[in-house]
Amino acid sequence: MPSSSASRPPETRAVPAPKLAERYRGIRSFSERLCAPLETEDFVVQSMPDVSPTRWHLAHTTWFFETFVLSPAKESYSPFHPDFSYLFNSYYEQVGAQFPRPRRGLLTRPTVREVMAYRAHVDEQMSRVLDDPDRTSRFHTVIDTGLHHEQQHQELMLTDIKHVFSCNPLGPQYCPPPASTDQETTTMGWRAFDEGLREIGHAGTSFCYDNERPQHRVFVPAFEIATRLVTNGEFAEFIADDGYARPELWLSDGWHTVQRESWESPLYWERRADGWWHHTLFGRCPIAAAEPVCHLSYFEADAYARWVGARLPTEAEWETATNAAESLESANCVDDGRFHPRAAVVAQPDAITQMYGDVWEWTASPYTPYPGFEPLAGALGEYNGKFMCNQHVLRGGSCATSRTHIRASYRNFFPPAARWQFSGLRLARQP
Amino acid sequence: MPSSSASRPPETRAVPAPKLAERYRGIRSFSERLCAPLETEDFVVQSMPDVSPTRWHLAHTTWFFETFVLSPAKESYSPFHPDFSYLFNSYYEQVGAQFPRPRRGLLTRPTVREVMAYRAHVDEQMSRVLDDPDRTSRFHTVIDTGLHHEQQHQELMLTDIKHVFSCNPLGPQYCPPPASTDQETTTMGWRAFDEGLREIGHAGTSFCYDNERPQHRVFVPAFEIATRLVTNGEFAEFIADDGYARPELWLSDGWHTVQRESWESPLYWERRADGWWHHTLFGRCPIAAAEPVCHLSYFEADAYARWVGARLPTEAEWETATNAAESLESANCVDDGRFHPRAAVVAQPDAITQMYGDVWEWTASPYTPYPGFEPLAGALGEYNGKFMCNQHVLRGGSCATSRTHIRASYRNFFPPAARWQFSGLRLARQP
Amino acid sequence: MPSSSASRPPETRAVPAPKLAERYRGIRSFSERLCAPLETEDFVVQSMPDVSPTRWHLAHTTWFFETFVLSPAKESYSPFHPDFSYLFNSYYEQVGAQFPRPRRGLLTRPTVREVMAYRAHVDEQMSRVLDDPDRTSRFHTVIDTGLHHEQQHQELMLTDIKHVFSCNPLGPQYCPPPASTDQETTTMGWRAFDEGLREIGHAGTSFCYDNERPQHRVFVPAFEIATRLVTNGEFAEFIADDGYARPELWLSDGWHTVQRESWESPLYWERRADGWWHHTLFGRCPIAAAEPVCHLSYFEADAYARWVGARLPTEAEWETATNAAESLESANCVDDGRFHPRAAVVAQPDAITQMYGDVWEWTASPYTPYPGFEPLAGALGEYNGKFMCNQHVLRGGSCATSRTHIRASYRNFFPPAARWQFSGLRLARQP
Amino acid sequence: MPSSSASRPPETRAVPAPKLAERYRGIRSFSERLCAPLETEDFVVQSMPDVSPTRWHLAHTTWFFETFVLSPAKESYSPFHPDFSYLFNSYYEQVGAQFPRPRRGLLTRPTVREVMAYRAHVDEQMSRVLDDPDRTSRFHTVIDTGLHHEQQHQELMLTDIKHVFSCNPLGPQYCPPPASTDQETTTMGWRAFDEGLREIGHAGTSFCYDNERPQHRVFVPAFEIATRLVTNGEFAEFIADDGYARPELWLSDGWHTVQRESWESPLYWERRADGWWHHTLFGRCPIAAAEPVCHLSYFEADAYARWVGARLPTEAEWETATNAAESLESANCVDDGRFHPRAAVVAQPDAITQMYGDVWEWTASPYTPYPGFEPLAGALGEYNGKFMCNQHVLRGGSCATSRTHIRASYRNFFPPAARWQFSGLRLARQP
Repeated sequence: MPSSSASRPPETRAVPAPKLAERYRGIRSFSERLCAPLETEDFVVQSMPDVSPTRWHLAHTTWFFETFVLSPAKESYSPFHPDFSYLFNSYYEQVGAQFPRPRRGLLTRPTVREVMAYRAHVDEQMSRVLDDPDRTSRFHTVIDTGLHHEQQHQELMLTDIKHVFSCNPLGPQYCPPPASTDQETTTMGWRAFDEGLREIGHAGTSFCYDNERPQHRVFVPAFEIATRLVTNGEFAEFIADDGYARPELWLSDGWHTVQRESWESPLYWERRADGWWHHTLFGRCPIAAAEPVCHLSYFEADAYARWVGARLPTEAEWETATNAAESLESANCVDDGRFHPRAAVVAQPDAITQMYGDVWEWTASPYTPYPGFEPLAGALGEYNGKFMCNQHVLRGGSCATSRTHIRASYRNFFPPAARWQFSGLRLARQP
Repeated sequence: MPSSSASRPPETRAVPAPKLAERYRGIRSFSERLCAPLETEDFVVQSMPDVSPTRWHLAHTTWFFETFVLSPAKESYSPFHPDFSYLFNSYYEQVGAQFPRPRRGLLTRPTVREVMAYRAHVDEQMSRVLDDPDRTSRFHTVIDTGLHHEQQHQELMLTDIKHVFSCNPLGPQYCPPPASTDQETTTMGWRAFDEGLREIGHAGTSFCYDNERPQHRVFVPAFEIATRLVTNGEFAEFIADDGYARPELWLSDGWHTVQRESWESPLYWERRADGWWHHTLFGRCPIAAAEPVCHLSYFEADAYARWVGARLPTEAEWETATNAAESLESANCVDDGRFHPRAAVVAQPDAITQMYGDVWEWTASPYTPYPGFEPLAGALGEYNGKFMCNQHVLRGGSCATSRTHIRASYRNFFPPAARWQFSGLRLARQP
Repeated sequence: MPSSSASRPPETRAVPAPKLAERYRGIRSFSERLCAPLETEDFVVQSMPDVSPTRWHLAHTTWFFETFVLSPAKESYSPFHPDFSYLFNSYYEQVGAQFPRPRRGLLTRPTVREVMAYRAHVDEQMSRVLDDPDRTSRFHTVIDTGLHHEQQHQELMLTDIKHVFSCNPLGPQYCPPPASTDQETTTMGWRAFDEGLREIGHAGTSFCYDNERPQHRVFVPAFEIATRLVTNGEFAEFIADDGYARPELWLSDGWHTVQRESWESPLYWERRADGWWHHTLFGRCPIAAAEPVCHLSYFEADAYARWVGARLPTEAEWETATNAAESLESANCVDDGRFHPRAAVVAQPDAITQMYGDVWEWTASPYTPYPGFEPLAGALGEYNGKFMCNQHVLRGGSCATSRTHIRASYRNFFPPAARWQFSGLRLARQP
Repeated sequence: MPSSSASRPPETRAVPAPKLAERYRGIRSFSERLCAPLETEDFVVQSMPDVSPTRWHLAHTTWFFETFVLSPAKESYSPFHPDFSYLFNSYYEQVGAQFPRPRRGLLTRPTVREVMAYRAHVDEQMSRVLDDPDRTSRFHTVIDTGLHHEQQHQELMLTDIKHVFSCNPLGPQYCPPPASTDQETTTMGWRAFDEGLREIGHAGTSFCYDNERPQHRVFVPAFEIATRLVTNGEFAEFIADDGYARPELWLSDGWHTVQRESWESPLYWERRADGWWHHTLFGRCPIAAAEPVCHLSYFEADAYARWVGARLPTEAEWETATNAAESLESANCVDDGRFHPRAAVVAQPDAITQMYGDVWEWTASPYTPYPGFEPLAGALGEYNGKFMCNQHVLRGGSCATSRTHIRASYRNFFPPAARWQFSGLRLARQP
């Protein structure tokens, strides 16, 4: 049998962000380019309840435009298929009933071909809206939201297919490995910040999600933050020091999770005779010591920080530091087509690096509303606000995030046991 | 979008049973013809742990020939793919470890195309064995077993895809509906048998499974058996009489199952304003009163029998009656391409009809070894014997069974709560 | 703290079976004597869903007489407490709703003192019925059933408190250990029986349960049966030969149970540096090699038999052999106050011993209705019939069974994974 | 049978807080007085994993003094029983292994009498330590912690026995009902606070838990807070307005909990023909409209606040308001022996009432470490810190809390779905 070899990865250039119509076409087609390496069978499977089939992502993001733009924008518009609103609504209770999430992987129809036809149909209809300045301006915010929404799902498509492939003993590859991963681990420095009242959150008129508003003042005590992410090599020392077997290092819920799930390493790691290997989007390979550690739960990030005598930064600390850090331009984002974290390079000894891209950084902050938070009106108010419980904030984006999607005030959030995202950590400490 | 319309069903003629090589080709290609109506996506899904993806059935039946014929028959034979024995071994502990059954639906590779290449490769290798009279004779029994095994999986392919499609609100169809289903319900007669020592089980040298041997004597008290199967219309009366809400009609385990699963009707039935509908291989449609009721658990069959003042036949009673019944030739089998049970037609008032085909008939008999039962030697000894606990015997085949696969002594078995097979019932009673 | 020492065991003499009133008093008071070693706290706990608190057994057996005798016998009778029928009905759907079985251990009231008052009240009322020859004769069968029912619960009280105590690291004792357990293991002989039509089941007018009727003919092929039970020492060899790690020895359901439950030995066995220990009603102690092995599931009994090249007897074989075996008089029953199985003693080389008492013997027979079986009318028809699925028959009684309760045709039944009863095995084989 | 009538409640006077030895005696004996109404059987049961048997609380609090004071204080001290450390350690991993929490209700030994002997023994030993000024001073903090720990378990004894009794259809009572519960509902006013940097947390040398330190500055935006708790009558309006059936009012996790648990009202509420009743420590009775609503989860408190157009206060807001509120002296605490929340009484229109006692108030704040938080050294560091995930802070104490136990900076915490505590809510809003 021809082995499950890697196809060419999608061509990836940074997408500039000019006119809305152009952005629409660029982002929509990028979703499809990300699917280029997949076989039809790959689009169908849901390997755990958190994962969605690729086909579902492609249809759901399309349903978003149909539901929130085309239907209200065009009186005569009738949905492409009467059952798609039920099938492809994720969690918008105010839009209507939803096909049960854990059963998404039971659907074999509509087929990939039919979903692509759905996308083409909606894109065609959207192009008419986007050709009409009045309607474009009336729906500008919603369309913008829909594009950011699609970019979020592009990241999920990658993390979900990575999980699907991890279940297969044949070890399918999504893309070829990066040219080289050998690299020295750079020294981790610390950067100090004084206490002060900080402005946190998004200001101005550019796009952001409702959960980034309102900008508000937070008193942030003095703190120090690490100049780079924690690496695979450093995390392997934690394992070697019995980190997964010492309850005093863990939160109580984390310890129970470790026991229940028999965790002994990050997700996708595998102990072999010659050391730690891991599953990546280019197949199974030895870990590279200098690369940022990835696929950690909050519990593991927190336990590592405790072991090393430090802690995770709060989101206010993270945002404070980011505003003093290197630019987004040099970050390792999905646009670069690496699909994998990259070792830090030292520019200057105290430069804060890797704030954007590579891996999402778990913060110490539970996901809560900012003072005065107002969710959007209507169904889109369910986008963020209703998840503000039992989740922690992650910051900075990952190697699966678009450069045009991330920003300093961006708040991602996942439950503390989740680890199928590209999630890692940066340390902080008291001065 | 093109609706999920029905393709042409596979062409279905009764397969004669002459030379082994010809039978091999006929049965193997029938598996592939049964897949003709499917889209690639349909081959991937496992809608519950009992169900396997179509792709898996196609590969597993191929693995059977590779493992039990090609490997022992040809010293130089090396398996098509080193991981397939792990992926496609179902439950043969003596062959080696097995990929966990409930995770079969997580595999997207090998693709359908690759599985078909696997089939072609094995068929090519098998044709060389079958061209060689010595090896054919040495492996005759195992090849015969492999062909019957494949026929069993053909039935499972149909029942499994029926279940997969039932999960989809779009209601995909596997085949077009039969020409007409309107028909009068015939009177149910009773045929009496005297007590006597009966020879039960398979004798002679023709193929049978090990669980049908040895033939042995059983003292069967006098009994009466119904001349046809219980119908949809009759079962609907049981429901209308609150059959699913009256604990005195049920076995204790059955009653708990009804409560836990909220059963209110057979599997696939749906109460609509205009009466009972059900999901079939040709989509959703109203039930036909005269057709045999189907997709019952043992618990439901047993409760219905108690409600009507009768009982289920034992397997010895069933086998006794079958030897006095109509021939297999007129049965509604998979070869006829109907893929659905058919109403009984009265030949003569006391003729026993529908013993073969239509629906498997639950018997009152738990699945146990016959006196002196010896499982086959080696791994094939796991085929039947190890399941002789907590299952009940079903007899007679269904509309998804091949005519060349079924016989009077054939013992099928499922746990009492299973109902995704084409399973129904025939009544018996004390004289 | 005073250690959890053993109190005096209840005084135990064989209870003769003369007049009904005398039997009533004898059996009812025996229940209370069995409780003498218990602390108040011991009456409350339900250590798993199969177990009931001692208090519940005491009240439920009393409810039986109240419901099935006092209420119908005396028009003016009003129940002792309006809620007790709900609390102490076990599973009689036709009597009314039942407090959920798995929650019996959540009730702290009525207290032990109140339950004893309930017993005294019902006993007082029953003594008036028993003083009245007319009513005694009218309710003779039901009272007889109630007494056998109470004897069944006496056995459960012992097996349940044994389980409750097993959960406690303090190792409470119910009774002092037997004087001596050292004994040679006797040779296991085989006794052959010819094939033949056998009369199986209970005939005549003496008491039996409905599931033992009607007596009927069964053709029993020739067989051989072991002259004694399998011992602890023999079972330890099975373990030493990796019996629990070899799937080929197990039924499929058994193998899955072994894996899921991590079974490595019979229930209550514990591997220590100096060999196997087990939990008994007199605390933890080393196993005695010559004593019958106990607390086996059907799966373990079946796997052991397969390992040794034999099988379990069917219930027809067992009943055939018992009618040729030693008398009940010499059996080790609860009346003897040992509360533990006893090593076999050879009388004559081919004498069949230990058919009664010591341990219940798993048979190869699933629990099914005899041909022509008719459950009792009314709620008492739920006593046995509705459990005829997914259970296996055990025969012969145990060291926790009353000598006046057991007989050759007696059919006990439990699911194949159950092992908290005193259950072991005897071998059979083809001649 | 004597019905499950209420005994006299424990005599309850406010315990003054003078010398440590006197406090020790007062608090320890109060635990025992709280048990006075219980029957022996009541001490045994664990009605859900969150609940512990009363006997366990009595022993665990004693183990605390034995482990953290007697063993380190007296070289010659040997534990009362070698297994008690295993049985009665709750969750201190650094002390050693723990008997599994969900199995506490399976233990029938040690008996109540033996646990009381354990208490007497430890009290006797502790009195010698407390007679010795040197050791008293060396262990002052630990003993103080042990006494506060015991007061926490006194509250749990009440909430746990309330839950145990709720499982019993007989409706046992712990205490007689309060003299009168009829009362007018007072108007709910709002009190405004300006924005500002606030000092939050405990300062000074008096006792507090480690999670209340260090005192630190928080910028608190302007807010308004309600002058009293939300009442039963107000919450009943939320139910009547379909509050439990409208997903838009709920956090996503809350909505799933409502669905999964079929919640339709607060815990212990029951809809009857004549309105809402609830289970209380004095039995089942109609709710009193003016009393604070109780036994709410965080999810219900949050949904109610959203429905009414308000929100929950943060813990910084709550602490800010409390420092401006009425004294602890007038609060309804356990010392008052009511064991039930009490309707608010208006002193002055804008006086903030009910901050202490009655019901714990859910805050909007997830339970996180204060900036610079340092857990205690050693095993006592596990007391609070390791629970700082997936829990929310509650403030102010309840009718089951001792007046000498609560304070403005006190942080209680529970997972958002917990509702067997006396937990309710107070509203806050943006100005």
